[in-house]
Amino acid sequence: MSSVLNPRDLAFHLYELLDTDALATRPRFAGQDREVWDAALATAQQVAETHFRPSRSRNDADEPQYLNGRVVTNDAVAPAYQAAAEAGIIAATHDADRGGVQLPHTIASAMIAWLEAANVGSSSYAMLTAGAANLLAAFGSAEQQATWLPPMLEGRFSGTMALTEPDAGSALADLRTQAIPQADGSYHLVGTKIWISGGDHDLTENIVHLVLARIAGAPPGTKGISLFLVPRQQLAADGSVGAWNHVTVGGIIHKMGWRGTVSTVLNFGESGPCVGWLVGEPHRGLTYMFHMMNEARIAVGRSAAAMGSSAYRAALEYAQTRTQGRLPSEKDPTTPPVPLVAHADIRRLLLQAKCATEGSMALVLTCARLVDDEQTATTEAERVRATRLLDLLTPIAKSWPSISCQEAISQAMQVMGGYGYAREYDVEQLYRDNRLNQIHEGTNGIQAIDLLGRKVPQHGGAALQAFAAWVQADCAAARAAGLTDLAEGVEGALTALGAVTGSLVAELQADATRGLANASVYLEVASRVVFAWIWLRQATVAQRALEAGASGPDADFYLGKVAAARFYVRCELPLNTPALALLRRNDATVLELPPAWL
Amino acid sequence: MSSVLNPRDLAFHLYELLDTDALATRPRFAGQDREVWDAALATAQQVAETHFRPSRSRNDADEPQYLNGRVVTNDAVAPAYQAAAEAGIIAATHDADRGGVQLPHTIASAMIAWLEAANVGSSSYAMLTAGAANLLAAFGSAEQQATWLPPMLEGRFSGTMALTEPDAGSALADLRTQAIPQADGSYHLVGTKIWISGGDHDLTENIVHLVLARIAGAPPGTKGISLFLVPRQQLAADGSVGAWNHVTVGGIIHKMGWRGTVSTVLNFGESGPCVGWLVGEPHRGLTYMFHMMNEARIAVGRSAAAMGSSAYRAALEYAQTRTQGRLPSEKDPTTPPVPLVAHADIRRLLLQAKCATEGSMALVLTCARLVDDEQTATTEAERVRATRLLDLLTPIAKSWPSISCQEAISQAMQVMGGYGYAREYDVEQLYRDNRLNQIHEGTNGIQAIDLLGRKVPQHGGAALQAFAAWVQADCAAARAAGLTDLAEGVEGALTALGAVTGSLVAELQADATRGLANASVYLEVASRVVFAWIWLRQATVAQRALEAGASGPDADFYLGKVAAARFYVRCELPLNTPALALLRRNDATVLELPPAWL
Repeated sequence: MSSVLNPRDLAFHLYELLDTDALATRPRFAGQDREVWDAALATAQQVAETHFRPSRSRNDADEPQYLNGRVVTNDAVAPAYQAAAEAGIIAATHDADRGGVQLPHTIASAMIAWLEAANVGSSSYAMLTAGAANLLAAFGSAEQQATWLPPMLEGRFSGTMALTEPDAGSALADLRTQAIPQADGSYHLVGTKIWISGGDHDLTENIVHLVLARIAGAPPGTKGISLFLVPRQQLAADGSVGAWNHVTVGGIIHKMGWRGTVSTVLNFGESGPCVGWLVGEPHRGLTYMFHMMNEARIAVGRSAAAMGSSAYRAALEYAQTRTQGRLPSEKDPTTPPVPLVAHADIRRLLLQAKCATEGSMALVLTCARLVDDEQTATTEAERVRATRLLDLLTPIAKSWPSISCQEAISQAMQVMGGYGYAREYDVEQLYRDNRLNQIHEGTNGIQAIDLLGRKVPQHGGAALQAFAAWVQADCAAARAAGLTDLAEGVEGALTALGAVTGSLVAELQADATRGLANASVYLEVASRVVFAWIWLRQATVAQRALEAGASGPDADFYLGKVAAARFYVRCELPLNTPALALLRRNDATVLELPPAWL
Repeated sequence: MSSVLNPRDLAFHLYELLDTDALATRPRFAGQDREVWDAALATAQQVAETHFRPSRSRNDADEPQYLNGRVVTNDAVAPAYQAAAEAGIIAATHDADRGGVQLPHTIASAMIAWLEAANVGSSSYAMLTAGAANLLAAFGSAEQQATWLPPMLEGRFSGTMALTEPDAGSALADLRTQAIPQADGSYHLVGTKIWISGGDHDLTENIVHLVLARIAGAPPGTKGISLFLVPRQQLAADGSVGAWNHVTVGGIIHKMGWRGTVSTVLNFGESGPCVGWLVGEPHRGLTYMFHMMNEARIAVGRSAAAMGSSAYRAALEYAQTRTQGRLPSEKDPTTPPVPLVAHADIRRLLLQAKCATEGSMALVLTCARLVDDEQTATTEAERVRATRLLDLLTPIAKSWPSISCQEAISQAMQVMGGYGYAREYDVEQLYRDNRLNQIHEGTNGIQAIDLLGRKVPQHGGAALQAFAAWVQADCAAARAAGLTDLAEGVEGALTALGAVTGSLVAELQADATRGLANASVYLEVASRVVFAWIWLRQATVAQRALEAGASGPDADFYLGKVAAARFYVRCELPLNTPALALLRRNDATVLELPPAWL
């Protein structure tokens, strides 16, 4: 059975495409080098294959149960959680002096991708804890950090993000959970949150909820939201886990996929005082949350890339070994059947899946590399550039992998036919699991509005300018490597994107509702430009390696990269043509459609 | 809660679009009229809502079990099966003198759509029986018909189609089940079939398997396959159910969706003689099966239309009642939130889903109407025309609803956000159920090869010519109704399809493998032309009704039809542009891609 990710492809992204080696010269990563990172990646793969992959299917069938007010997980989840913690995956990017491993985000992301490809339902608990820990590390007080971070990074406590309420899903402005100030500086939380992943379980001694709520008297809307640290159990004076903090599980929600991760309704302060502590300043909670939300959104894209890759590899292996039928030109039924991969239509499905999954992985790791640059690049200009690029790429890295890898998983299913649809095989679970990625951490429609309504126009369009400069430099490099056709395709797509952006931004500045009516189509167009560029980058690196004399399986690997890039630019990027036509006229159909006509 | 189908839309298709009333003048339907048909449809809706809809979710969770060699269903399935039989749904199209209801296929299809929209997993058993009965009615001997049809139509016996084998899925030419001639004219069957829906259960006294097998000494390939009637239980001399016929359940397969319908491995003759009878002539089994397979393929599209419609209606109701957020131009957070449907992007998702689901329903009912014409039209020329059109439209009616309604269900899920992804709501089950429609009864890749490699070139291209003549007449009617933009769009698309067809047919006649390399893209292009035409037809009818003074909700209904047609032609049909460019150069990427590059 093939591994859930392709180590050769991961190494290509990390070391050939993203020059991760260069990070070794930065002070934060002193003492690290490729050998250290490869060991970390090998550990992650080993943890994934030992503790996550074997229980992927079981974790789907044997879901967390809600029994007597508590959530109980099957007995494969806790050992996986502890293995991830012991391997330093929760603590991967944290400061060494807080118990972290201080690895680059680029490497940490690839490590986590192994877990997500192997068993996303189990991996979530660790990722939620890492996200909550990052939020505390960024905005918590020194005392909060000293109290809560060590047990979280060690795997003794876990974390959640509690944003959504029954009547405030995408619209956080309407959230109503109250935080009532107490004389000792703490707050009492009262309210209900829903869709809280990992909101209760039996994996750790304590659960640290990071909760958005309003302090009594706060302004309405997003400017009156604060962030609170609300543990499931209070801590005793000696730091040991103390009394229950009146966080009640109101019920659990049963999802189509991602079933290993419990989704809960949480009631705060329903049965008694629920004590929380303000994180950072009052009314700045949404700003803090969105700082980390960007990371969570890139993580959504990463899990999509990981699950898509796992499906692609399963289907590729199946197509290479399963024989079925003959080529259309072969009329003699006594000739032996051919492998599925001999059929052109099967190769189309696989090539499309390769474009989506390897392109998604390249993109999300590129974003992780930008996070490293944002935090550790030498110059202020480099750091600002990284921030601008992340602003622009985050909604795309969240949404396009979630869409294109869902198509890839569907293509993998189609390659495998009935076997792809059967629960006795892996692909159907990946199809169910990954579909969530189009919904959570802001639906893709929200991402589209974020991209066109905020990220593109802010700072005078600086983000798109920075991106365009990068693309143009890469196109020049592609030309120098002889890939003129790819460079022309990407440059043309970029120019078209720039032109339509100008007209849409002008329109939305006059009337935001009208200007954003086709935001989802804009997201689609921008995403294809980004994917064409990420494939052009891969092809350029591959072409240089071929020129340098790559041979054997390595040559096939590089030739596949160039072929996939050509296919993307020639056969997928042109899907932008009708979408651009729609955007140029800013088609008013859906804006003006009376609901009664539906 | 809204009904799973829209009765107003069904009536539009049946009586306004397809002129089903005209069938009343044909001798086969003597004595029938709209009143009779509406009563039949109301009965189907009532059976669907009483016996199928309430157990949809339960039927998914409480799957058929394999216990002690038998398949056991939950106790909601058998009453539903009997209700369908008693309502005449299994016998709907059969001759009155054999116990049938002798309804038009057009009406029967709409009746079955109610069951499929309500609970496809339970409906399958009845549909499989109807299909097997149709096959016997067409090709069985008089004795076979007299013996087996009455108990099947009455609901006492059920039926299956047993084609696929472990090593022969899409490639039926390679099937190996043996039929060994016996002195009494019967055969003993020996072999294994897989993915046999309804292969065993506890719903009926007996199960009639229609099995493809080879008579010893038969030629290789598809020309050596015969069709056999193989009951689970033999019949005693008095016609009562007798001894077990050694059809063994080798196991059951667990699917992602469509869980209510058991999928079995069946072993024939493994533990003792398994007696079967030849249906029709030796070696003609695949021809017989394919005669009925066309019907089964249209039924696949119909179930996709039904499930898509159910999801669309659920999402529409949700979007009209659930409030969330404000319009982008509204900056005051104290204004009340608006219904989801007020957001342009939500209307886009719903309008796309409307195009897919109502377009699919119109197409599959159009195909059913053509089946009626093929069997009962007055002139030979009309009957031949119907056959030609069915040849062409069947692979499209099978595959494009399966694809576009899957997108529609995904769009419905996106409208509902987390609720769409939760098993506490209906949409996620529809997403899992309908995905099978892209795979079974010939994968969509097989449909593409059937369309371009067979249906288009056969009879000198007569099918496409007949279709083009129909489209042109409809475009003239659209122009006469003032819908010039729609007529121009559809005519242009038809012309482009015709041109590219010519070059591809020339290519495939020289080299079938090369000519069919992009068959799936051709299927996509042809399907969009068909959908644009089916929407132009709906818009023309609607426009005439508006001119005739429709008002109130009826006017909204018709205005919605015209708006959806415009959206389809303006925003969806242009997706053909890049696909046509690929086909014009018959892009060789996937044909020539070495598998080692994947």
